[in-house]
Amino acid sequence: MKHETPALFIDRSRIRQNYLDLKKALPPFRIAYAIKSNSHPEIIEILKKEGSHFETASIAEIEKLLAMGIKAEEIVLSNPVKAPTAIARALDHGVTIQSFDSVEELEKFKPYATAGSPFDGAQGDKKLPAIRPQLRIVVPNEGSMWPLSGKFGADEELWPAIFQYMKDNEIPLDGVTFHPGSQCETIAGWDSALYLTWRCIEIAREYGLNPTTINIGGGFPVDLGRKIPTPTAIGKVVLRHLKEWEKKGFKPTDLIVEPGRFISGSAGYLASRVVGVARREKTWAFLDCGVFTGMMETIDGISYPMLFSSTAEKETAMLCGPSCDSVDKMYEAQIPKARPGDAVLFLSAGAYTSVYASEFNGFLGPKMVFLDEVKDPKNLFELIA
Amino acid sequence: MKHETPALFIDRSRIRQNYLDLKKALPPFRIAYAIKSNSHPEIIEILKKEGSHFETASIAEIEKLLAMGIKAEEIVLSNPVKAPTAIARALDHGVTIQSFDSVEELEKFKPYATAGSPFDGAQGDKKLPAIRPQLRIVVPNEGSMWPLSGKFGADEELWPAIFQYMKDNEIPLDGVTFHPGSQCETIAGWDSALYLTWRCIEIAREYGLNPTTINIGGGFPVDLGRKIPTPTAIGKVVLRHLKEWEKKGFKPTDLIVEPGRFISGSAGYLASRVVGVARREKTWAFLDCGVFTGMMETIDGISYPMLFSSTAEKETAMLCGPSCDSVDKMYEAQIPKARPGDAVLFLSAGAYTSVYASEFNGFLGPKMVFLDEVKDPKNLFELIA
Repeated sequence: MKHETPALFIDRSRIRQNYLDLKKALPPFRIAYAIKSNSHPEIIEILKKEGSHFETASIAEIEKLLAMGIKAEEIVLSNPVKAPTAIARALDHGVTIQSFDSVEELEKFKPYATAGSPFDGAQGDKKLPAIRPQLRIVVPNEGSMWPLSGKFGADEELWPAIFQYMKDNEIPLDGVTFHPGSQCETIAGWDSALYLTWRCIEIAREYGLNPTTINIGGGFPVDLGRKIPTPTAIGKVVLRHLKEWEKKGFKPTDLIVEPGRFISGSAGYLASRVVGVARREKTWAFLDCGVFTGMMETIDGISYPMLFSSTAEKETAMLCGPSCDSVDKMYEAQIPKARPGDAVLFLSAGAYTSVYASEFNGFLGPKMVFLDEVKDPKNLFELIA
Repeated sequence: MKHETPALFIDRSRIRQNYLDLKKALPPFRIAYAIKSNSHPEIIEILKKEGSHFETASIAEIEKLLAMGIKAEEIVLSNPVKAPTAIARALDHGVTIQSFDSVEELEKFKPYATAGSPFDGAQGDKKLPAIRPQLRIVVPNEGSMWPLSGKFGADEELWPAIFQYMKDNEIPLDGVTFHPGSQCETIAGWDSALYLTWRCIEIAREYGLNPTTINIGGGFPVDLGRKIPTPTAIGKVVLRHLKEWEKKGFKPTDLIVEPGRFISGSAGYLASRVVGVARREKTWAFLDCGVFTGMMETIDGISYPMLFSSTAEKETAMLCGPSCDSVDKMYEAQIPKARPGDAVLFLSAGAYTSVYASEFNGFLGPKMVFLDEVKDPKNLFELIA
């Protein structure tokens, strides 16, 4: 069967292998797949079978997972800022691990510091379980393509006020969490983050708080054509810190890692066709996928490794999408002299593509097609219409 | 009935009035509403009743309109670069006015230069009507927030090659079209574009081509808090050019204008609530709508006039969306000291908002709510849950 473009081919075995590779690199950790990167039920099913847990940011994501038979204790809610009703609804579902990064968010956590608070949405006398607050700290996002700090995370200066508030209001600090930034391409990102995490634990203890959960977030990179650290190399740094902590008498009882791109990114191949070319000052190659049909990260600077059906001599072309919007421009690349019908395969494109797609201008996002195994990506050209 | 936020309220009477205002400013023109700006069927129905025509960029948009009973001759396909099959399918539907801006696109038009070409998709001996090619020229996008040129449009240097190709291949030049750029805030945009249009007609005539359709695109601005020209003022400039052309013996037989934002933008009010606040180096106000739930143009620099439910003292806050994505940041603004639950109303937000929304991270785009008339936007606060 041939598939219309744009199509996003997903290699099932690669999803599984990515999970196992990370598990091997970080044996004591629970892997909570960040479903925001690609929330297709089939990916969730594959990971569920391997024993994966899941990271969410919204009630809709939580309810999607619960409906698929995933247990509440296998779900973490790592969005540091939530609507007050979202906090209560998540607890009502049994999702207790919830992040925060401000006193303002703690004010919303306060009613749920111990088990037993009622929730308007609950049936009868159902009482909510106690929340397990995770402090999201700011870490240097060096080496990350998309630094996350600024929007999220409390830095060291804010910790005393936060811990004082927790102490005064008897809110336990269950854990500390950070995110080195998406597609973090240097090990230093994790190393510095873990030193800061330890510093945070020490200060928390001064306030009588005893965090026991450590969540190292995501950030594990995929191949975008540059040198990147392996999960094993990253794991080594992380495990070294854990050992040092143990020597100091600290052994976390719950360790979590939240890969998104690392699991779904490299498993995805986005197949597209050239619909037209305009040779002007620049050469513009118009594809049937663009910023609004999955390639949104390109406006933030990502460029994907690519394969081409054509073997023509290469030229520099500005890749753009099919819509009439001026924003719908991707990036300049060396591609075989483009003609309508030429196929382009974007590699490492399984994450943050289909989930960003809208139906703007009547152009639909990529149809997802699952394959047992992609041995040679070039063979995918034969699968497209 | 109270509506959950985010909600996009649309004022039906304003949609109608915007259409009538433009009709009054440009009496000899057919108004072809650019449905990409907001493709909700109810907006299309309102405009259809007023006699509006429609501008499209894709087969999906064309088929949506046809299914709503709009006639093919009331539809223009203004996307200058289309898949070869899209050109034929549009013709098969009877949509003959199609744009181009390169010799490469003309090569695709060639089989349809005269009526009678067969189309694989057509039933039996059905033959396709002749195409009406519209040359999209580059015009200076001065004063536009989103300059369009670069991606689309042929500049003067390219016209001779294009016209020679048309002459050699007996492809008629039906019309000339331009776009001054979205949200064009200066009259000079239209003035210079029309001088260029005339220059293009003169050169076309040297090749024996006789365009009779003029399509002045969109670009009519809405109130974003700055001084903008009225449709009447823009119309005056356009009509002056038409008169000058008439003196020179040129009277177009088909005049088209393609407003999008101007029709749907000012009719829309996006209601959102603060879900959380984090006071750090900056104050971050987290709303239940953001970049992925409709406010995508903010990453390209738009900021909307706003109304607030709170009367607290104002502070500077970075407005951001509810997702865990670092890209989900809107802009900094003076807003009343934010608390969870505060309502914010974004004005002039009917265009390029709902159509850009994805379901990223489980957060849905704004629900659209139609109202007969919005006399005082402040009253909308009473309509939200």
